Amino acid sequence: SRRFNIAAIAGDGIGKEVLPEGRKVLEVAARKFGLDLQFTPFEWASCDYYLKTGAMMPPDWKDQLAGMDAIYFGAVGWPATVPDHISLWGSLLKFRREFDQYINLRPVRLFDGVPCPLAGRKAGDIDFYVVRENTEGEYTNLGGIMFPGTERELVIQESVFTRHGADRVLKYAFELASARQRKHLTVATKSNGIAISMPWWDGRADAIGKDYPGITIDKQHIDILTARFVLQPDRFDVVVASNLFGDILSDLGPACTGTIGLAPSANLNPERNFPSLFEPVHGSAPDIAGRGIANPIAQIWSGAMMLAFLADAPDAGPGYREAHDAIVGAIEQVLKDGPRTGDLGGKANTVEAGDAIARAL
Amino acid sequence: SRRFNIAAIAGDGIGKEVLPEGRKVLEVAARKFGLDLQFTPFEWASCDYYLKTGAMMPPDWKDQLAGMDAIYFGAVGWPATVPDHISLWGSLLKFRREFDQYINLRPVRLFDGVPCPLAGRKAGDIDFYVVRENTEGEYTNLGGIMFPGTERELVIQESVFTRHGADRVLKYAFELASARQRKHLTVATKSNGIAISMPWWDGRADAIGKDYPGITIDKQHIDILTARFVLQPDRFDVVVASNLFGDILSDLGPACTGTIGLAPSANLNPERNFPSLFEPVHGSAPDIAGRGIANPIAQIWSGAMMLAFLADAPDAGPGYREAHDAIVGAIEQVLKDGPRTGDLGGKANTVEAGDAIARAL
Ligand SMILES: CC(C)[C@H](C(=O)O)[C@@H](O)C(=O)O
Ligand SMILES: CC(C)[C@H](C(=O)O)[C@@H](O)C(=O)O
Repeated sequence: SRRFNIAAIAGDGIGKEVLPEGRKVLEVAARKFGLDLQFTPFEWASCDYYLKTGAMMPPDWKDQLAGMDAIYFGAVGWPATVPDHISLWGSLLKFRREFDQYINLRPVRLFDGVPCPLAGRKAGDIDFYVVRENTEGEYTNLGGIMFPGTERELVIQESVFTRHGADRVLKYAFELASARQRKHLTVATKSNGIAISMPWWDGRADAIGKDYPGITIDKQHIDILTARFVLQPDRFDVVVASNLFGDILSDLGPACTGTIGLAPSANLNPERNFPSLFEPVHGSAPDIAGRGIANPIAQIWSGAMMLAFLADAPDAGPGYREAHDAIVGAIEQVLKDGPRTGDLGGKANTVEAGDAIARAL
Repeated sequence: SRRFNIAAIAGDGIGKEVLPEGRKVLEVAARKFGLDLQFTPFEWASCDYYLKTGAMMPPDWKDQLAGMDAIYFGAVGWPATVPDHISLWGSLLKFRREFDQYINLRPVRLFDGVPCPLAGRKAGDIDFYVVRENTEGEYTNLGGIMFPGTERELVIQESVFTRHGADRVLKYAFELASARQRKHLTVATKSNGIAISMPWWDGRADAIGKDYPGITIDKQHIDILTARFVLQPDRFDVVVASNLFGDILSDLGPACTGTIGLAPSANLNPERNFPSLFEPVHGSAPDIAGRGIANPIAQIWSGAMMLAFLADAPDAGPGYREAHDAIVGAIEQVLKDGPRTGDLGGKANTVEAGDAIARAL
């Protein structure tokens, strides 16, 4: 069994407050389950670093991180001082693309003890995954502005999809659905309005689906799909979506289960050619940053997802899967009857909430 | 005062069942309020017509409709026999674009008597408008496929935004917000991920906003915005969005108020150079078509929106605005204590539901 090297990047805002709680829980889990995790902190990929140096990351960032098995990430962005397109395209979106983290895996799950905005839903009713394509599609800086600054101004924004990119995320989603009980895959589309890429995307889903005869496929236009997240969240099992649609669905899904403050995510390079990245879905939250009141659960749960990913690495050694399950179990238990942060109506601060989960392990 | 010529296009599926109910209510309103409405039915813009002729509409469709003041539209599309890209791009999306119906106005409102999927919300809590750009943006057939059918397959999909197109919908939204009490405008964006068009769109919102110092502007990324529709629907007043984002928000909004089966829409050419089009947000609903059980309320409410638009035409004569208010009032009353269709847990069929609203007028 081997050691895993993990880059710890806190980033900005509440990232600096919740990442330590995530590490705390992971270190307790490591002792308990005999895991071998070596954390290396990095101060960059943050707006502080940008303000000091004029870049979000040092020129050799890729070399510095290339030997890592995973990146445990807080949150990035501080729009008051650094515009989003610099902070995000200069760090998080670069990681996703340059480390080919082509799967963004985001669980949507309703827990006991979390007030649900949807009437009459209880824990167990909502339990699905959003599998988001994470490297191409609608997120590009291709295109341009013609006649800028004039009345005739015209903007072209290009989306780029490749068979390589679509097929691998679709396959991942079909595999995930195959491993689950309901064996149901929802494919987000908008082929009735977006006339080139989306009919093509539907075609790729059909083509890949041929290899998975046991999976039922349900193609849904993104408009009605968002409506069904609210009206029939219990019908979903695995939802696969393009970069933009996956972004939308993985904020909406967690909102339907109470708060995006709990939602974790795994940005995966399944082949392990590059480090994968684990981060909360929430951002740096400038409105509450610095007050020590942020909910650390999304960060902690993201750490658990990291352990589940490491569990399948060659030579991982035992304990990783169990540690994942134990952390998720501890989150479940603390949400039910432990101290909670203000966003969930409690009085605990960030550190107390992290301690409670570490204790429950 | 003058006569208004209205094209009645039922289209497909439940369009054929709900449009007559809409006409029935409009005709009762016309007698009661002294309106002068002349309906001309058209059998085309339907998949039946396509299957007979090989085209969704006759070559001279534009001439046939050009003299009309409005198009009262049911629903189009019958995917089992005609693919969406033919039925929709050959009719509805053509109308929107060639008749320059650049505003798609969609109210989101919670009514007494409609079960709300959101816990603890009551009538009055949710009452806002989505103003959707309706002619450009993400809905294009520009782009193409390179290396088709091979492993190297690559797809480019272009979105096109113009200053002309963005400014006029933003102005409309600011004007609408100015006329409302809360004077609050939410601008949907995704400038942190979609790197060219969306930062530009934000800039246009700021530029137009300079002329409306009394309006508070809140720019929200589409991902978190969908989450807030679920978590804080009471905070919205007017929401302005691109074609795609407006499409999503105007299905999600009505879902948050119970069902998209009630949601109406107005596809407006505010200058009245071309007919405007009024249609339910729901589609042709092949799953329930032909059974006479569809809810006609979205169609009826769309008819009311048509009257409100006609009310402001030069020489409209009196009564139109009152008739709009009376129809909306009748819908409100019947939803509260009248017979309802199956989608709302009642036993009424489509005709009975239409009759109830006509009687309540
Ligand atoms: C049918 C479809 C093309 C249409 C759209 O996406 O505009 C519909 O969803 C709508 O909202 O009117
Ligand atoms: C911050 C932003 C660029 C990012 C995204 O849109 O991907 C975030 O919303 C997410 O979902 O991880």
